[in-house]
Amino acid sequence: MERLAKKDVLRADQFTRDEIELIMRRAEGYEASLSRGERLNVMEGKVLATLFFEPSTRTRLSFETAMLRLGGSVITVAEPKSSSAAKGESLHDTIKTVEGYADVIVLRHPKVGAAEEAAAATEKPVINAGDGAGEHPTQSLLDVYTIRKERGKIDGLKIALAGDLKNGRTVHSLARLLKNYAVSLLFVSPDPLRMPRGIVDELKDRGIEVAETDDLRTAIAAVDVLYMTRIQRERFEDEAEYERLKGSYVLTRGMLAERGGGLTVMHPLPRVNEIAADLDGYPGAAYFRQAANGVPVRMALLSLVTETG
Amino acid sequence: MERLAKKDVLRADQFTRDEIELIMRRAEGYEASLSRGERLNVMEGKVLATLFFEPSTRTRLSFETAMLRLGGSVITVAEPKSSSAAKGESLHDTIKTVEGYADVIVLRHPKVGAAEEAAAATEKPVINAGDGAGEHPTQSLLDVYTIRKERGKIDGLKIALAGDLKNGRTVHSLARLLKNYAVSLLFVSPDPLRMPRGIVDELKDRGIEVAETDDLRTAIAAVDVLYMTRIQRERFEDEAEYERLKGSYVLTRGMLAERGGGLTVMHPLPRVNEIAADLDGYPGAAYFRQAANGVPVRMALLSLVTETG
Amino acid sequence: MERLAKKDVLRADQFTRDEIELIMRRAEGYEASLSRGERLNVMEGKVLATLFFEPSTRTRLSFETAMLRLGGSVITVAEPKSSSAAKGESLHDTIKTVEGYADVIVLRHPKVGAAEEAAAATEKPVINAGDGAGEHPTQSLLDVYTIRKERGKIDGLKIALAGDLKNGRTVHSLARLLKNYAVSLLFVSPDPLRMPRGIVDELKDRGIEVAETDDLRTAIAAVDVLYMTRIQRERFEDEAEYERLKGSYVLTRGMLAERGGGLTVMHPLPRVNEIAADLDGYPGAAYFRQAANGVPVRMALLSLVTETG
Repeated sequence: MERLAKKDVLRADQFTRDEIELIMRRAEGYEASLSRGERLNVMEGKVLATLFFEPSTRTRLSFETAMLRLGGSVITVAEPKSSSAAKGESLHDTIKTVEGYADVIVLRHPKVGAAEEAAAATEKPVINAGDGAGEHPTQSLLDVYTIRKERGKIDGLKIALAGDLKNGRTVHSLARLLKNYAVSLLFVSPDPLRMPRGIVDELKDRGIEVAETDDLRTAIAAVDVLYMTRIQRERFEDEAEYERLKGSYVLTRGMLAERGGGLTVMHPLPRVNEIAADLDGYPGAAYFRQAANGVPVRMALLSLVTETG
Repeated sequence: MERLAKKDVLRADQFTRDEIELIMRRAEGYEASLSRGERLNVMEGKVLATLFFEPSTRTRLSFETAMLRLGGSVITVAEPKSSSAAKGESLHDTIKTVEGYADVIVLRHPKVGAAEEAAAATEKPVINAGDGAGEHPTQSLLDVYTIRKERGKIDGLKIALAGDLKNGRTVHSLARLLKNYAVSLLFVSPDPLRMPRGIVDELKDRGIEVAETDDLRTAIAAVDVLYMTRIQRERFEDEAEYERLKGSYVLTRGMLAERGGGLTVMHPLPRVNEIAADLDGYPGAAYFRQAANGVPVRMALLSLVTETG
Repeated sequence: MERLAKKDVLRADQFTRDEIELIMRRAEGYEASLSRGERLNVMEGKVLATLFFEPSTRTRLSFETAMLRLGGSVITVAEPKSSSAAKGESLHDTIKTVEGYADVIVLRHPKVGAAEEAAAATEKPVINAGDGAGEHPTQSLLDVYTIRKERGKIDGLKIALAGDLKNGRTVHSLARLLKNYAVSLLFVSPDPLRMPRGIVDELKDRGIEVAETDDLRTAIAAVDVLYMTRIQRERFEDEAEYERLKGSYVLTRGMLAERGGGLTVMHPLPRVNEIAADLDGYPGAAYFRQAANGVPVRMALLSLVTETG
């Protein structure tokens, strides 16, 4: 039997397909319980510490809601300037202290590798809620959960990841998680913002079909799921190149006219302008449902890693 | 039967007298339960999101206490700079996300109309905890609750609102709520800070007796309830005018000498210097009891708007 | 029977030995319950307000964890800039307001005497979590609890307090608490940072054996417990004096070589560089256990001061 008891959640590629499925099934169960209005007490008497050394309302509130919905309690550091770290304490010492208070620790930190460093300091489970340009594995797990729920399956789907694929930790982690499924991936980005070769090679080595394009319209016509992310102007050396491309990475309802229904549109949020407001009413616009899915998926993770025995 | 199930709380004038009385009776019930030390579980398993895009310790802690005393849980954004809004997310998108986490949302926002905008974005109940110079309806409900409790009734009372009546959202909302009762109102302010004509006309149209004065001493002698607010120097174009008036809007124990007992003194707090510390021992000084009344009144609102069926 | 019902916790020297022992036994009971994974509901339905007008992650999270582990709830002001105090409200008024919400108040404030001022404003128990250069009595109680747990007793021990003994509120409060026991104290500091004469005299008046040295190595050889604190460069008028001394107040594993085992090393944390990382594996390195002891000790205090009758 697959178990995640006492494990840390640090990287998307740490999970086997069986482990991902275990998390998905557990999350489905919790979602059903919540929709029936059931009171859960799985985490009663347990304490979660959310340590956010970099702000993130969405991820923090989602983890805290997950813990509270399970009957547990939360202590939090949401404001880095008011923390011991601001007094010069090392991450190691902060974690050694917090392990004396909490049963499980969720950490967001601006430094790549911070979650691994925290996990090395304590026996308590550590969940990486984003480490700088590194990983954000729980976002990817809720993305996979969303695809599964919106489409009924993952194997066999054509999935496009669009936007800044070079710098986005979200799309890196998602691509690595999707390696476990028989999907066909289309990477949609301006040339300077292509998916790193290393990740493309990892995917091909696992037998995943990968194609690349810089044309969002091509992707719209071809895929089941379109995962949008933001293009940031500051990533371009050539301003003219940015001006030429930016419009084509702003998804509007009009661009879906020829496609009709049947496309699932996702986005990790917050969006700035890359998905027009007129798309919100489109049946396949799944991004707010995707955000809500963070709660059952994080409930599943919190309960799985704190299981005993 | 009056119900508030699934309703938003946005403005003082949204309430009928029957709805106000429903809230008052529910609050009385909760206050009695609290004083008997009873454990309530009305909101067990439910989550309140307090989103404070502008700081307010008093209002936030009062709502959170209300939710916790009902057996519910709280997620909070108390520091605007650490929120997604700081990353450029629209209020609409923030609310669409938070509705995936919480059962009820309390919002304070610097922009007039923000609470209406939030309510339009979600099916979940939204409670306005202050929208800039706009409204603060839950403050007015606890003010009415306080008057009722201190005086045993509202109909037939003479009530003075004193201070900056031009700019104060608290006194605007309170006046609009008192329209539902057979009260006599006395507005006490320096001439440049008089109650807006629109509100005075609304009151007169409802048959409320309204008088105005710039003399606080006259009011002290004449009314049952004196509701003080702050006069802000920056509101005056004429510094000499401010200097002439400011002293008369600082309430001291000495000013109540001729009046004797029987006056109820209220203030929304925080006070700066408009009520002298020597008044705290006066039996009718109700402002700290008024602050405490925020808890049962907000318990009533939270439980009423989240009722099902 | 010793009782602390409705008492404030303001200074280390307010406690009799019997009261300290009452707290220690209560804390031991809670620690045993926690280690057996028992669910406690002593504070169910009760609310703790943590008011931190000065940041302190460790102390705040430790009090909040204590309250949550007892089944209670927490409201918090962790960010002074977002508080009513920032709007010019007096501490008296803030406390008079918060007493309407909470059953017990924990206060950290930059001003000496703030906790006494708060306690004077309310009937509700106030616990001092640090008032500027003043006192930090709950730190001292967990320090005594740690010594008792690590060594099995307190009477008869030789205890060294090392570092900046002139300015450290932690060592002042600890010395005053240890007056109640038959200990022998060694104060280890550079000459300009010696323990204030007043405290030394208090101790001697109580029959406590007191010695002083500026040599940390002497202390290592002589004592059962070594309590380290930080030496701050800015405290020295003479830079050369600081450079001469600083090395001798950085404790390394090597310095314990001749001593062997049997020394208990404590530190209130956060450390900066005064205890080398290589000491963490030393069996007597108790500082992270000491931090964890904050939870049962604060559980004991919260439950004792809120007892009725």
